[in-house]
Amino acid sequence: MSETHVLVLDDDPPPRLDRLAGRATVSHCDAKSLAARLPEADVLLVWDFTSDAVRDAWPEPGPGVRHPAWVHTASAGVDRLLFPALTASEAVVTNARGVFDRPIAEYVAGLVLAMAKDFPRTWELQRRRRWEHRDAQKVSGSLAVVVGSGPIGRRIGVTLRALGVETELVGRRARDGDPDFGRVHAVDEMERLLPDADWVVCAAPLTAETTGMFDAAAFSLMKPTARFINVGRGQHVVESDLAEALRSGRLAGAALDVFASEPLPGDSALWELPGLIVSPHMSGDTAGWRDDLSEQFCDNFDRWVAGRPMINVVDKRLGYVPTGQADA
Amino acid sequence: MSETHVLVLDDDPPPRLDRLAGRATVSHCDAKSLAARLPEADVLLVWDFTSDAVRDAWPEPGPGVRHPAWVHTASAGVDRLLFPALTASEAVVTNARGVFDRPIAEYVAGLVLAMAKDFPRTWELQRRRRWEHRDAQKVSGSLAVVVGSGPIGRRIGVTLRALGVETELVGRRARDGDPDFGRVHAVDEMERLLPDADWVVCAAPLTAETTGMFDAAAFSLMKPTARFINVGRGQHVVESDLAEALRSGRLAGAALDVFASEPLPGDSALWELPGLIVSPHMSGDTAGWRDDLSEQFCDNFDRWVAGRPMINVVDKRLGYVPTGQADA
Repeated sequence: MSETHVLVLDDDPPPRLDRLAGRATVSHCDAKSLAARLPEADVLLVWDFTSDAVRDAWPEPGPGVRHPAWVHTASAGVDRLLFPALTASEAVVTNARGVFDRPIAEYVAGLVLAMAKDFPRTWELQRRRRWEHRDAQKVSGSLAVVVGSGPIGRRIGVTLRALGVETELVGRRARDGDPDFGRVHAVDEMERLLPDADWVVCAAPLTAETTGMFDAAAFSLMKPTARFINVGRGQHVVESDLAEALRSGRLAGAALDVFASEPLPGDSALWELPGLIVSPHMSGDTAGWRDDLSEQFCDNFDRWVAGRPMINVVDKRLGYVPTGQADA
Repeated sequence: MSETHVLVLDDDPPPRLDRLAGRATVSHCDAKSLAARLPEADVLLVWDFTSDAVRDAWPEPGPGVRHPAWVHTASAGVDRLLFPALTASEAVVTNARGVFDRPIAEYVAGLVLAMAKDFPRTWELQRRRRWEHRDAQKVSGSLAVVVGSGPIGRRIGVTLRALGVETELVGRRARDGDPDFGRVHAVDEMERLLPDADWVVCAAPLTAETTGMFDAAAFSLMKPTARFINVGRGQHVVESDLAEALRSGRLAGAALDVFASEPLPGDSALWELPGLIVSPHMSGDTAGWRDDLSEQFCDNFDRWVAGRPMINVVDKRLGYVPTGQADA
């Protein structure tokens, strides 16, 4: 087999790609040079997954048009890759499913506990050198609704359950007999689930169906004591509706790790909303995560060159890796 | 049986004592009136467990000296009650063992996750409207040493393990074959355990043996990346040694919920130590805790008047309720 050309879209080169030495030529590009370099690449590694450059650079289909046969994104969400020209092409799309599950589940558990124990207020009081005892909440016995039944949503559910939080999982379609959760609920069951939830967590893939699903109607179904957490994508939430729900006390609190516009602009009203915790899209990123992402790509590269079935192949119609696909 | 006189030391009366109606006369006192009221009481309920009033009011032993036959404290720690005159007396001492286990374990898990995920810095950045992505830490795979093998320490260990944190438990004496932890280590094994720990958690009873156990020598055994959490008593820690360990970077961080002097004075240096989280002795206190404490006292009252074995009887020599004693 002739040497494969791996093109990496990055600002900061991935570690550990020397594993490909002798089998692939690795070259790097940025958003500006991507379009010119794309036709010569066999594999595109989208390392800078926050960029819309692929959408801008991907060629429209046509006779003799060349593009990479395989596109891998170093992210769990593939929303930025599912534009019509790529979806319609023969290119295989894979993602980083698996790398972020535990870190994100830990992050969500941390947010749940921080809100239940009133940590933000404790730190505010510490800054002012004030001793103000309050009664916190027990998380054990509370109820969480986790939207997203992929590996991240599942791991969040398992982790919250380990803390004694009852957890219901919502996926694209309802099913019974799930080994961990018994029933997985469909999105159209949320109307019945939301009024009982103490915690509503969004960890869904961003698709046409899930865009804007957390809007005024959804927030109006929740208890005034409920809290909302988003570790999915900013576009899952109608941010102005969340702002209104928090300002009016319709909702007790929220934590957003993702935003419609990232980095969140310095003048955004979200920074100072009452009861809102803002974090910079870091829930999945723990020390060593770049190594893990590179290893995962290289493992899949081994499968690709050997003609073995690849892992984490995205169903471009659904917008995510279907559950049940063999994992490594 | 004639009506029992229950004297309650409180600032704020306990809820639900109407359960005793018809069986006990309940009267209330404060620190000032306690000494005068003590001789006529059969039972003393120390509701305000932060007070040293019992020590000051308890009569010295002598012929004809009357004191309550039973003293119950609405706290897990009994350190304030184990002064010589009470220890030497026939009075039975019981505590609130069991009520605080889950809340404190949740609180500690929340602190561990908050420190691993760098939440305090995230909130500081939010206040300044700054988007600064950092890599967080995974807690799964890290190692915690929990000092205290009573119900609180055990529940902390079980909860951390559910988050994937390896946990070693330290008690007064070493023993093998513990159903949850295999080996429980003795305090003199800490020298070997501390250098490997990512998290060191103090949830021990305050006794002569454990007072000041977290001092410069203990901190010098820990990794510079380790964090220390105290939900025991302030006197477990030599606060000036902890301050020095944090200032010098000898220790990555700490969280104190308890202090040698409470409320922590406004001019204490601890409020602003680098990497230190200060909270106002609230780790065990969740909505409904006062109800739970009252119910527990009334349950024990039922046992006492019926002559049945009481729960949570403190071994006044050891300073805590021995493990293995039948719980309700």
